[in-house]
Amino acid sequence: MSATPSCPLCTRNPLVEIWSDDQLRVTDAQDPDFPGFTRVVWHAHVSEMTDLTHAEREHLMSVVWVVESVLRNELSPVKVNVAQLGNQVPHIHWHVIPRWRLDSRFPDAVWAPARERTPEQNLAWEVFQEQQLNLMADYHHALRNALEQLPGYRAAT
Amino acid sequence: MSATPSCPLCTRNPLVEIWSDDQLRVTDAQDPDFPGFTRVVWHAHVSEMTDLTHAEREHLMSVVWVVESVLRNELSPVKVNVAQLGNQVPHIHWHVIPRWRLDSRFPDAVWAPARERTPEQNLAWEVFQEQQLNLMADYHHALRNALEQLPGYRAAT
Repeated sequence: MSATPSCPLCTRNPLVEIWSDDQLRVTDAQDPDFPGFTRVVWHAHVSEMTDLTHAEREHLMSVVWVVESVLRNELSPVKVNVAQLGNQVPHIHWHVIPRWRLDSRFPDAVWAPARERTPEQNLAWEVFQEQQLNLMADYHHALRNALEQLPGYRAAT
Repeated sequence: MSATPSCPLCTRNPLVEIWSDDQLRVTDAQDPDFPGFTRVVWHAHVSEMTDLTHAEREHLMSVVWVVESVLRNELSPVKVNVAQLGNQVPHIHWHVIPRWRLDSRFPDAVWAPARERTPEQNLAWEVFQEQQLNLMADYHHALRNALEQLPGYRAAT
């Protein structure tokens, strides 16, 4: 399927890619409010999950579950949020988002307005955020290892 | 797995159930802002998708994709949003949400604040909403029929 010129997800950004194969890429959302926020982006410009074939959908979801699993092991979030929305960019991309009680939206969705935090809560978040950012290299390493164990994996050329 | 007393999703509400089997139920979210907003709720109190077995996860997702597919066929949304969040109620429930350009949040996520609408936009939404509500019985009927075609289906007893 050809790229759609106006679509930002039809252009790849190697700087944020953690892993890829022939069909999809796993990217670091680089969102300081949610360290470890990871995306799984289908390479082709497809809008809905039910536009994919059964085999494509299975492959994409198996990658989403590897991301969730490694994210839980490495970052110990209190909850994982997974979502495929695409109202603004109708090109399949899954959000896999680790959540913590201290984060700026908990327990609301990350798309809700940020809540008010006391100076003490802000300080606690900054300390926690720094700890989490220190885990990113290990998280990405574990994620690449786990994804390369997927059945049928062959490296993108 | 036993029910968790404080969890609202550990109690079933037959009034909103569209379909169910031994493992899960499909419910009408009855949200007037998003006619056709449908949920897929796992019966057992499980928090994360990666707490399920592979077979359980496949079954749950296959139901989510049937919901998306029938919802597209019957209600023709401009986009479908699918999400498993659970920050407030950590008991697996998928949101499958039809979106339209006229809805109160488009193109933001449904969890974002409602945007301002002109009186003309409100009127257009009310006309559209009524049309959509008139399609609900057919949507639910088509959904039940499609779900009963799933491989391995047997009716809940």
